[in-house]
Amino acid sequence: MNHLKDVPLNKAYLLLNHGPSTIVTSEHEGVANVMAAAWVMPLDFDPPKLMLVLDRNTWSRHLVEGSAAFVIQLPTRQQAELTLAVGSSNGGEGNKFEQLDIRTSRAKQVEAPIVDGCVAYLECKVISEPHNQEKYDLFIAEVVAAYADERAFSNGRWHFPSDELRTIHYQAGGAFFATGEAFQVSRG
Amino acid sequence: MNHLKDVPLNKAYLLLNHGPSTIVTSEHEGVANVMAAAWVMPLDFDPPKLMLVLDRNTWSRHLVEGSAAFVIQLPTRQQAELTLAVGSSNGGEGNKFEQLDIRTSRAKQVEAPIVDGCVAYLECKVISEPHNQEKYDLFIAEVVAAYADERAFSNGRWHFPSDELRTIHYQAGGAFFATGEAFQVSRG
Repeated sequence: MNHLKDVPLNKAYLLLNHGPSTIVTSEHEGVANVMAAAWVMPLDFDPPKLMLVLDRNTWSRHLVEGSAAFVIQLPTRQQAELTLAVGSSNGGEGNKFEQLDIRTSRAKQVEAPIVDGCVAYLECKVISEPHNQEKYDLFIAEVVAAYADERAFSNGRWHFPSDELRTIHYQAGGAFFATGEAFQVSRG
Repeated sequence: MNHLKDVPLNKAYLLLNHGPSTIVTSEHEGVANVMAAAWVMPLDFDPPKLMLVLDRNTWSRHLVEGSAAFVIQLPTRQQAELTLAVGSSNGGEGNKFEQLDIRTSRAKQVEAPIVDGCVAYLECKVISEPHNQEKYDLFIAEVVAAYADERAFSNGRWHFPSDELRTIHYQAGGAFFATGEAFQVSRG
């Protein structure tokens, strides 16, 4: 069953606004990789942009520099073990998808695999900023496609139907928080 | 009672790693302001750097450009109403501290007020990057002092003792999530 539904691009920032941890996939010349990334956030609304900090010592960095594209996906609490596993190795040229038995599909607008079972996907094209990339390991990208699991995100809001589908927030050393209780505040 | 305890600078990123919403304070030539900011994240470990997206139409932007400094603080669930209130107005030259009856203290390393009752503070000096500031409203800064409420953060980990002291994650339209359940994942 596929619960993925397109998210309008001018609402894509809402997928990341609450600061969840992410998984990054990328591919260049037929070689793909996957890694965890906690340091991802929105940069602009429309057209949507986001930022990703991508260490120069990772294989994914090499792929993203080659392809100028990547996909940010939001793993669920069920996928926390997977998130830690893909994050704990820089991978080299080894195939983490095979080693960890990760099921994937294909992205729509960029050439890259996506990890099945995540609750949101943001396909991104890098905006070339050599100074930021070299000095800060910082990549700025435009979001060119966004879609989310409609059980967890619809009408521009997250509303997690179960603990298993909650997004997660990485602390360190294998410690995570689940996205917690929703509450509403009114403007004085 | 003051529960604030210094956080070693090389651990300061752990205050922000889980993606909480923040409040930004700044001051220039004796004029101070306060606003909410969801788009803040770490950029480097040691010396610690972070990034803040600061819209050009805000009064705080004017102050930060003048002083090259600001303070990021993490409001608690108890302060969600305050967070929404300071975020919903760009302030102009009005004094939001007085209008909203916000109690403040002084930062240690930079010239700015800090909002009392937050669970973490990161005092920052801007690293001048005119291209990023002009093109993307993006400010990169070095964290020069960090301290946190030791009831909620100690030994490099968040461990919220009560719902009231939990950090918060902004969605939109007054909707927040509290930082949720902590869980530990082991490396395969």
